[in-house]
Amino acid sequence: MSAQLKKIVGNMLIAQSGGPTVVINQSLVGAVLEAKKHKEIKNIYGALHGIKGILEEDLIDLGREDIHTLQAVANTPSSALGSVRKKPTPDDCAQIFAKLQKYNVRHFFYIGGNDSAETAHIINEEAKKAKYELHCFHIPKTVDNDLRENDHTPGFASAAKFVAQAFMGDDLDNAALPGVKINVVMGRHAGFLTAAAALARTYPGAGPHLIYLPERPFDVTHFAAAVTNAYAKYGRCVVAVSEGIMDADGTPIAAAYTKEVDSHGNVQLSGTGALGDFLVGLIKQKTDIMRVRADTFGYLQRSFPGVVSANDAKEAFAVGREAVKCSTSADIDGSIAIRRKKGKAYQIFFERVPLSSVAKETRHMPAAFISKNGHDVTKAFLDYVAPIVGVLPPIGRFKNIKVKK
Amino acid sequence: MSAQLKKIVGNMLIAQSGGPTVVINQSLVGAVLEAKKHKEIKNIYGALHGIKGILEEDLIDLGREDIHTLQAVANTPSSALGSVRKKPTPDDCAQIFAKLQKYNVRHFFYIGGNDSAETAHIINEEAKKAKYELHCFHIPKTVDNDLRENDHTPGFASAAKFVAQAFMGDDLDNAALPGVKINVVMGRHAGFLTAAAALARTYPGAGPHLIYLPERPFDVTHFAAAVTNAYAKYGRCVVAVSEGIMDADGTPIAAAYTKEVDSHGNVQLSGTGALGDFLVGLIKQKTDIMRVRADTFGYLQRSFPGVVSANDAKEAFAVGREAVKCSTSADIDGSIAIRRKKGKAYQIFFERVPLSSVAKETRHMPAAFISKNGHDVTKAFLDYVAPIVGVLPPIGRFKNIKVKK
Repeated sequence: MSAQLKKIVGNMLIAQSGGPTVVINQSLVGAVLEAKKHKEIKNIYGALHGIKGILEEDLIDLGREDIHTLQAVANTPSSALGSVRKKPTPDDCAQIFAKLQKYNVRHFFYIGGNDSAETAHIINEEAKKAKYELHCFHIPKTVDNDLRENDHTPGFASAAKFVAQAFMGDDLDNAALPGVKINVVMGRHAGFLTAAAALARTYPGAGPHLIYLPERPFDVTHFAAAVTNAYAKYGRCVVAVSEGIMDADGTPIAAAYTKEVDSHGNVQLSGTGALGDFLVGLIKQKTDIMRVRADTFGYLQRSFPGVVSANDAKEAFAVGREAVKCSTSADIDGSIAIRRKKGKAYQIFFERVPLSSVAKETRHMPAAFISKNGHDVTKAFLDYVAPIVGVLPPIGRFKNIKVKK
Repeated sequence: MSAQLKKIVGNMLIAQSGGPTVVINQSLVGAVLEAKKHKEIKNIYGALHGIKGILEEDLIDLGREDIHTLQAVANTPSSALGSVRKKPTPDDCAQIFAKLQKYNVRHFFYIGGNDSAETAHIINEEAKKAKYELHCFHIPKTVDNDLRENDHTPGFASAAKFVAQAFMGDDLDNAALPGVKINVVMGRHAGFLTAAAALARTYPGAGPHLIYLPERPFDVTHFAAAVTNAYAKYGRCVVAVSEGIMDADGTPIAAAYTKEVDSHGNVQLSGTGALGDFLVGLIKQKTDIMRVRADTFGYLQRSFPGVVSANDAKEAFAVGREAVKCSTSADIDGSIAIRRKKGKAYQIFFERVPLSSVAKETRHMPAAFISKNGHDVTKAFLDYVAPIVGVLPPIGRFKNIKVKK
């Protein structure tokens, strides 16, 4: 970050990467609308399907999209530019620079998670080596909420809202037709999204009654015992399970059920019901409970239109705008982190952090958010997550005045 | 129906049965609020968990719930009285009458699907045999939309809205990260809910690209070929599959993957990802497409708070009220069917039909709603379903003005 006062004039290129969210286009449109205000930015290009679109010169002219379209796209789920799960090789990087030079790109924005931050970091480092002047920014996004440096990440709150609402409804469904219900929630290494299921507890005895996170070792015998205890207590049991739960050796419980990996070395966890079905089999085998079911929330959690946290949409838009403000105000590179102000009222601010500080490594649930028994969350977590997610639908329940027999 | 002009004074008992919906409490509260207006009805009892609550005398006094609570419950998903999947034996019926007599119940309402209508029918016939004066009504409910006599059933439209929104989001997710995506939708014998996925096609090329219904035989070879063709055409393929798809012999494709049956003889189809995972394996085996995923929407479809068709909520409330109006105005028994008025504008009316006419047997998608190739729906279906479901979230898309290479 040596060129603190240097402004650079040229074209802008923006792209989206990794798993979509319902607010990822807010960040895209926030960046585009901000870019239109700055004379340092000439053309505004969007690369289709992330770095794949750069390599293939598959670019669209976002500067020519009208305000009505931009606003409509901002409110539409999933990456409007398309996404990609591709880690650039050194050879790819050389090609990317050739393309950036060809299109006179000087402001580059990559919206995504830690894998995407890593990609931006690699491109940035290669640009430095090549002495190509590039303002390179990562804009955070991930439903997993596992980016370092960030209090929380755009996309998480809306996905958490979906998970909370799904558990609210499913808990009432389970109360109507009692049994054991296991819901598998996204979250490869971090349990934040699974933990958000706790927001569904809106009345005494409400589920989820057990919450299993990747941060604590998953033991099949303990699991069966905990389900049996909860079932004895409540006459039913709703369980939130992260797709990423691991045994004491760190082997994902789901690992035996799929062999597919992407180019970042990640095992496929979503898009299959195998883990849920395995856990159902386990409970049926180890207990005498008859009605045992599992649902895997899958891709619905990250792309469901209409279930959006108002905070999340606003913050996602603002963080996209902030990245362009930084890029045009002399800062040369970085990722825009969301921080929370200390104090009672929920308030955030942005801070530019080095790309390397959010790249590659993920953040986990802090120990203070996980209950001592390892299968629940603490009040500290609820205090953290409730204001991010915002208002949930109200639940009405009868007073249940018994008729004398 | 011999006692057309006879009014009967006594207590009312209402219960809920079968799978919950997001509007089943609208019908319950509609009936309770209407009952409060009629002097023929003294106490208003709710049985917990359907006929199980009657047999065990597990009743609550709904007449003592305040209006605020009733309204809040009306807007809350899943059966507030609890539900049951129990077919009464002749011995159960004898006991049920003893209980109804004990509590001087003269107006009985059972909210549910065709299995519940059958239960109401059995109770009603036993009451007639025993010469016990009972006004016995079935109030329709089912996300499957498979009740005979009805244009559509309360609960369906909201579940259809959930399915449509889920496909809208998932289609955009699949457009961002292309591959084959299979979504398994509820519907044991009737494809209405799966077919509603077609509402997600809001732009040219939008998915679902293929729709498989239980009304047409499912052939694994044809399926793989259709997916391959769609993938070649769109570069991706989103598939809606009913959980109840069957082969040419009428054997459910899912049958080999689960052995659990309820007391009505139904195989467990929801609460497992087995069918989706089987179809993914099939495509991976028969094609060279790399990215193939499946999600099973499961219980979320029927109990998700906040995703409610306004029509559905209104109609569910009205049909509950109508049943009580009928019961207190001399009609002795029946089910309240929803009919649609002919003409351009969507309008419905209610008609009392015999319990036997909706009991047991289910309704299927009419041939006019299914395309000739067997894996899509027709315009006639869209004309039928769109006004029931109502407004869906708007989707914005870029004009995609390509930058010259």
